[in-house]
Amino acid sequence: MAQKSIAVLTSGGDAPGMNAAVRAVVRAGINKGMRVYGVYRGYNGLLNGDVQEMNLRSVSDIIGFGGTMLYTARSEEFATPAGIKKAADFCRSIDVSGVVVIGGDGSFKGARALTNAGINCIGIPGTIDNDIACSEYTVGFDTAMNTALQMVDRIRDTAQSHDRCSIVEVMGRRCGDIALQTGIATGATAILVPEIPYNIERDVIQRIVNTQKTGKKHFIIVVAEGVGKVAELANYIENRLGIETRATILGHVQRGGSPTLRDRVVASEMGFRAVELLEKNLGNRVVAMKDGKIIDLDINEALDMQRVFDEDLYKIAMTISI
Amino acid sequence: MAQKSIAVLTSGGDAPGMNAAVRAVVRAGINKGMRVYGVYRGYNGLLNGDVQEMNLRSVSDIIGFGGTMLYTARSEEFATPAGIKKAADFCRSIDVSGVVVIGGDGSFKGARALTNAGINCIGIPGTIDNDIACSEYTVGFDTAMNTALQMVDRIRDTAQSHDRCSIVEVMGRRCGDIALQTGIATGATAILVPEIPYNIERDVIQRIVNTQKTGKKHFIIVVAEGVGKVAELANYIENRLGIETRATILGHVQRGGSPTLRDRVVASEMGFRAVELLEKNLGNRVVAMKDGKIIDLDINEALDMQRVFDEDLYKIAMTISI
Amino acid sequence: MAQKSIAVLTSGGDAPGMNAAVRAVVRAGINKGMRVYGVYRGYNGLLNGDVQEMNLRSVSDIIGFGGTMLYTARSEEFATPAGIKKAADFCRSIDVSGVVVIGGDGSFKGARALTNAGINCIGIPGTIDNDIACSEYTVGFDTAMNTALQMVDRIRDTAQSHDRCSIVEVMGRRCGDIALQTGIATGATAILVPEIPYNIERDVIQRIVNTQKTGKKHFIIVVAEGVGKVAELANYIENRLGIETRATILGHVQRGGSPTLRDRVVASEMGFRAVELLEKNLGNRVVAMKDGKIIDLDINEALDMQRVFDEDLYKIAMTISI
Amino acid sequence: MAQKSIAVLTSGGDAPGMNAAVRAVVRAGINKGMRVYGVYRGYNGLLNGDVQEMNLRSVSDIIGFGGTMLYTARSEEFATPAGIKKAADFCRSIDVSGVVVIGGDGSFKGARALTNAGINCIGIPGTIDNDIACSEYTVGFDTAMNTALQMVDRIRDTAQSHDRCSIVEVMGRRCGDIALQTGIATGATAILVPEIPYNIERDVIQRIVNTQKTGKKHFIIVVAEGVGKVAELANYIENRLGIETRATILGHVQRGGSPTLRDRVVASEMGFRAVELLEKNLGNRVVAMKDGKIIDLDINEALDMQRVFDEDLYKIAMTISI
Repeated sequence: MAQKSIAVLTSGGDAPGMNAAVRAVVRAGINKGMRVYGVYRGYNGLLNGDVQEMNLRSVSDIIGFGGTMLYTARSEEFATPAGIKKAADFCRSIDVSGVVVIGGDGSFKGARALTNAGINCIGIPGTIDNDIACSEYTVGFDTAMNTALQMVDRIRDTAQSHDRCSIVEVMGRRCGDIALQTGIATGATAILVPEIPYNIERDVIQRIVNTQKTGKKHFIIVVAEGVGKVAELANYIENRLGIETRATILGHVQRGGSPTLRDRVVASEMGFRAVELLEKNLGNRVVAMKDGKIIDLDINEALDMQRVFDEDLYKIAMTISI
Repeated sequence: MAQKSIAVLTSGGDAPGMNAAVRAVVRAGINKGMRVYGVYRGYNGLLNGDVQEMNLRSVSDIIGFGGTMLYTARSEEFATPAGIKKAADFCRSIDVSGVVVIGGDGSFKGARALTNAGINCIGIPGTIDNDIACSEYTVGFDTAMNTALQMVDRIRDTAQSHDRCSIVEVMGRRCGDIALQTGIATGATAILVPEIPYNIERDVIQRIVNTQKTGKKHFIIVVAEGVGKVAELANYIENRLGIETRATILGHVQRGGSPTLRDRVVASEMGFRAVELLEKNLGNRVVAMKDGKIIDLDINEALDMQRVFDEDLYKIAMTISI
Repeated sequence: MAQKSIAVLTSGGDAPGMNAAVRAVVRAGINKGMRVYGVYRGYNGLLNGDVQEMNLRSVSDIIGFGGTMLYTARSEEFATPAGIKKAADFCRSIDVSGVVVIGGDGSFKGARALTNAGINCIGIPGTIDNDIACSEYTVGFDTAMNTALQMVDRIRDTAQSHDRCSIVEVMGRRCGDIALQTGIATGATAILVPEIPYNIERDVIQRIVNTQKTGKKHFIIVVAEGVGKVAELANYIENRLGIETRATILGHVQRGGSPTLRDRVVASEMGFRAVELLEKNLGNRVVAMKDGKIIDLDINEALDMQRVFDEDLYKIAMTISI
Repeated sequence: MAQKSIAVLTSGGDAPGMNAAVRAVVRAGINKGMRVYGVYRGYNGLLNGDVQEMNLRSVSDIIGFGGTMLYTARSEEFATPAGIKKAADFCRSIDVSGVVVIGGDGSFKGARALTNAGINCIGIPGTIDNDIACSEYTVGFDTAMNTALQMVDRIRDTAQSHDRCSIVEVMGRRCGDIALQTGIATGATAILVPEIPYNIERDVIQRIVNTQKTGKKHFIIVVAEGVGKVAELANYIENRLGIETRATILGHVQRGGSPTLRDRVVASEMGFRAVELLEKNLGNRVVAMKDGKIIDLDINEALDMQRVFDEDLYKIAMTISI
């Protein structure tokens, strides 16, 4: 029997831990006797033939690096039927029968299209936002939150020294998970997320006032990117309550950095699992975390799922951050 | 109806995140209309009357600090029937009907004894070692592992520059979880844990030799405290393979430091849950993580459980760290 | 002879290391037999009588904390002759004959006014911007730069993964030192500072193009706050060169955080020196760093000095960041 | 005129910032029209011909990495006259007329021997210990101290929670600078360095007792490697004072890690200066820091200098850490 060949690519926004997943795919694949190709710059690499065969040492010492050694990019051409056919043909031309795709929802749709064109694809959720419905956890989430946490801790030092209110915008366009958890972990007086409509008087002003009554003089407000408008909010608070208020947008800092242990370990497990699925000639599946464990599920099912915001955790946050 | 009074203490070895748990207990208790006492230096505080009523601001800005603001200590006196009676009597003297105990297995046994003496106790697993059978996760584990990770990453820099083998002993007397996960996350060529008997030739030497053949010239070996003997191991490797080898014992550094986001959030959830249980006048229960969620269970059941080492994860580690 | 009494305050923007300076003043003062008062919220504390006598333990364990335990604020009242008289009278009312003022140029002017009103003041340069002409180094500078460095390193991960240009605005309104040194340390392709007029084509575009020719595909541009306009610059680069470009304003994160070793040590030395000067009944002096050593000089001389930007270092930066 | 060729190597123990120095040498050399070779594994590379011509991109993105991309090693062969001749002959065979040697005193002696054999060598002080007499600062010192600092800060958390004394051994065989500065920065109750003979009763026990009287219950003792015997010291304190005492040897962790800003900037300046010297066909010189500035001096003069321990700083430490 001919040696099985697989490929691995990273797509969409980069996330810390992607390198750990790539490494696990390469090492697990070679361990199972496969040939493993690294594909550069997302699906583009399959269109341009920009791939390289990896050996065990190709992924040495990358587990600790942020970003992705395979680079990442969006591809307009791949989004077309012709592009998908071209990518599938390229895979066949180098005998690649399976591809591990590390990225977000958009990347998974590409994986489904490519599977349907005859190349088995397995998705691994890799995005800092934790905004993939099928998985409790996405690779990069823990690092991004800990980065946000450390930055808010720094901002708190100066807020406290000046008796100020500091508003911090963290990442998360559709998903408030970074904001919620960072808010809990930094003792934020208010947390605004896209999933829960807010009333500025009730959810911000009143909470500050209540906390003030207990003697607190500095306040942290964590706001998800999807809520935004932090400069306006700062003005509102300053005018309404006479508390000096500053806004900071953390921005891209949250995407980078050496991955935390959790991101390295979960990415390793997910990469290993993805190769097991390709070994069984399965495609159209997504590796995910459910009930704290690594599972896999059908990609259509995965893409149809709706995220559920953790309202219980939000209530805990509102109770103890006072 | 009289106002309910509860107390909170930290016992056994300190762990990052204990402060977050204390804070959640104090804030949730006050939110539910309770009076909350902080007890100093573990069970000793109940024997000496070393307690203080807390208000919302007593726990301000502690969520980011390592260690425990309530201090911790072991108590020989409390371990006696007379000690337990004295502690229970003291609780009654200040109308405390429930106590949240944050600590490890030994602390839980104390909680059981005190519950049986009439004061409802709820245990929260707080120990860096993750060695409590009833819970998938113990407060402090994530911080300790990330500290170990960062230190091994530093050691790797110098191992790589000198083409050396570096052996690193991490914490974990009975439990190899820190070693296992730190080993995966740092790409350790070998991982030795107390749960799995090892053969030095097969599990260390042969793995180094196999990796050498692929071109690698520096090696990390992660060893749990319960396996120990890292200096001997270093000598063995150096003599056997002629590779310069150094051993480092990370030690107490792993116990301290500002808690990671995960430790802050999980500790907050557990503290909140513990107060909910006391609100219902329950005792002899332990808060734990199961299937990634916060649950509670009977303390006897908890203390009877046996830890199960994650052999599947160990196999993944052995496959991809090559 | 009556016991000498002195006071210490922090004024202006907070800076990491201020706590180390406060601690050194308190400890050195007590060691020399003095009574030492902490003054809260800058000069305001002298107007409101918001001071507290410190003992050796009042400053325990603060050396590692960012911000200032004495809080800081600006004071409009103090800036008036009446305010200065009131502050001097208050000092006399509690027998305080000397005050250590930790802050920037504005705070030093207050110190001069207060000295002239009869209370010996000694200035310690405390500001992250390094914008005090009389001193090669200001307390907080090293921490702020290392924070900026770590954040740019994170941003670089994502810039590299996406073949992007990332523009990062760091602090420094009048002084480009943070930008210059952070730019060198992160290998920035271009560095824009307020001290050196720039031509966007020559100093940014041409440098990117030259670097591109050698094969580089991601670029970091570090811009001082005093130059600003990073969003416009990002648009310009993206339109001019077709390279995806993003701008980040680091903001207040740079003010906080646990001080680096250098800030702790220099602040300790400066605090100690300030007390020595008060012991000799000197006022109107500033502690500073010159030729790498701690010195002191007349406050008028200090305030008259002009900062000199290190053009040689800028040239080195431009040579090696290519 | 023929193109000038130079080489760069790292020798002795690795130190964070060595990569920044290598990068500056390569970039400055190429900027001046030179050909620049990287030499692998210290002087061995000159004996084995293990060199590689570098281009501007060879040193891309290394400024943030610990260790040395050129690897380092000790060489017995090079220490012989025959070895030195062989190395010089190799240099001539590839037209290399100058070599930048980054390392410690031992490496400088090699540089002197090689210069005397006809190949101009310039030394750059690269060692974490700051134990090179001719320079106030050695590349790697700041990173090592900040690593030690962060680790002692972690240890302090647990010492404080348990009312313990923690003894921490930091690097420095002959030189107590890391111990002194780390001790100041962490508020160590006692600091033991090889330069100052100590009396355990006066310099440790009495200092602990004095501090205890003021209410302090946890103590940090920082000990330089050259003093050592931390386990014995721990026993002594525990037996003598009844305070639970633990010892930690930080070890090799202090050698690695991403260099701090200071190490990156100073290394860059020193690398640049070394190339300027080779451009002028100078050899037998060492780049150093004096009065906070980068200078160069004769290598014989440099090697004859005696280190002077900063006793004034030690006295400040003893005064304020109480």
